[in-house]
Amino acid sequence: MNFITIPSEIERRSMEIIAPYLKEYHLSEEEIKVYSRIIHASGDPEYAPIIKIHQDAISKAKAALLNGADIYTDVEMVRTGINKKRLAEYGGQVHCLIADPEVAKKAKEEGITRSMAAVRSFGKALNGSIVAIGNAPTALFEILHLMQQEEIYPALIIGVPVGFVGAAESKEHLMETSPVPYITVRGNKGGSPIAAAITNAILYML
Amino acid sequence: MNFITIPSEIERRSMEIIAPYLKEYHLSEEEIKVYSRIIHASGDPEYAPIIKIHQDAISKAKAALLNGADIYTDVEMVRTGINKKRLAEYGGQVHCLIADPEVAKKAKEEGITRSMAAVRSFGKALNGSIVAIGNAPTALFEILHLMQQEEIYPALIIGVPVGFVGAAESKEHLMETSPVPYITVRGNKGGSPIAAAITNAILYML
Repeated sequence: MNFITIPSEIERRSMEIIAPYLKEYHLSEEEIKVYSRIIHASGDPEYAPIIKIHQDAISKAKAALLNGADIYTDVEMVRTGINKKRLAEYGGQVHCLIADPEVAKKAKEEGITRSMAAVRSFGKALNGSIVAIGNAPTALFEILHLMQQEEIYPALIIGVPVGFVGAAESKEHLMETSPVPYITVRGNKGGSPIAAAITNAILYML
Repeated sequence: MNFITIPSEIERRSMEIIAPYLKEYHLSEEEIKVYSRIIHASGDPEYAPIIKIHQDAISKAKAALLNGADIYTDVEMVRTGINKKRLAEYGGQVHCLIADPEVAKKAKEEGITRSMAAVRSFGKALNGSIVAIGNAPTALFEILHLMQQEEIYPALIIGVPVGFVGAAESKEHLMETSPVPYITVRGNKGGSPIAAAITNAILYML
């Protein structure tokens, strides 16, 4: 079997194959980068029609990251997928509390998901940060609740929880009520690689 | 907004929603568990027609894991997604070498991907193990090469690399030439959560 083994060539060829799927959407160059990374990470061009990027999302996120903003994730897989070396060049770090024993205890006591308890624990640290939710609809609902009730305002919400129980609803709720810019995908699809792909697409624009 | 926040209830309801999508495939109870976890992790019922489970895959994997087999992954996101606590109950560990400096050096020297170099470095340790490839087609090609050239035989290959450059081909090649059982999905789709979902589905059967 002959196959391409040079990483840069694999990525170049992949982006070339993805480009035609995006033609009809009249995207900016930066939006093309976000769309392409999502489709590259999922192998699924059917993401194109469901991606929703708030008009200020990319510019606000870039400004925050250049200013050293941290990134907060709901689950470890999102943290793992983010290019932390690139983020560190600008002074930022990635935080995730889902494996924290205190968070697990709190979740059990309150009968809520660990990702929801983890997001709640971040509290005011979320101000000015990038939030990347790739797994739990409950975590995204919790972020929206924090913004409304406690006036905590991240610079950008990357909200792409996945699944059949609350995911689609949480993302519609994000688009309808978020006081800050967001990037999301409508419907049941999403997940950790999608959250990481969006985050990395923006990091690579800096 | 009202939404379900009890983890066990979210999972139960999710599996209930997924069940009707699987009716037409005449699956065993164990196969249903693998299919359901893939669709649960991706939010995408269109995985159902492309999932391919070798007839001996689940039984051989269960036997290996009960015997303390380790799991080898191509990338850190797959390792992160696997339930390591559950695996440890049977004596197994998860290994991933992609962040190893020696592997990075070797990849650069040879002009190959880091995941390919990582898989090559595992060598004979792969005998009797579970291999979970969730990202790189080059890693899956390398496993097939190791089996053919060096008579290294894992108990199961979970081969679900993703993307437009080599992924579909690597998975067809797996189905056509693997001397050991496999679980895969045809086409461009796949990824780390799919590899972790398949692995965890089997772990939860033990």
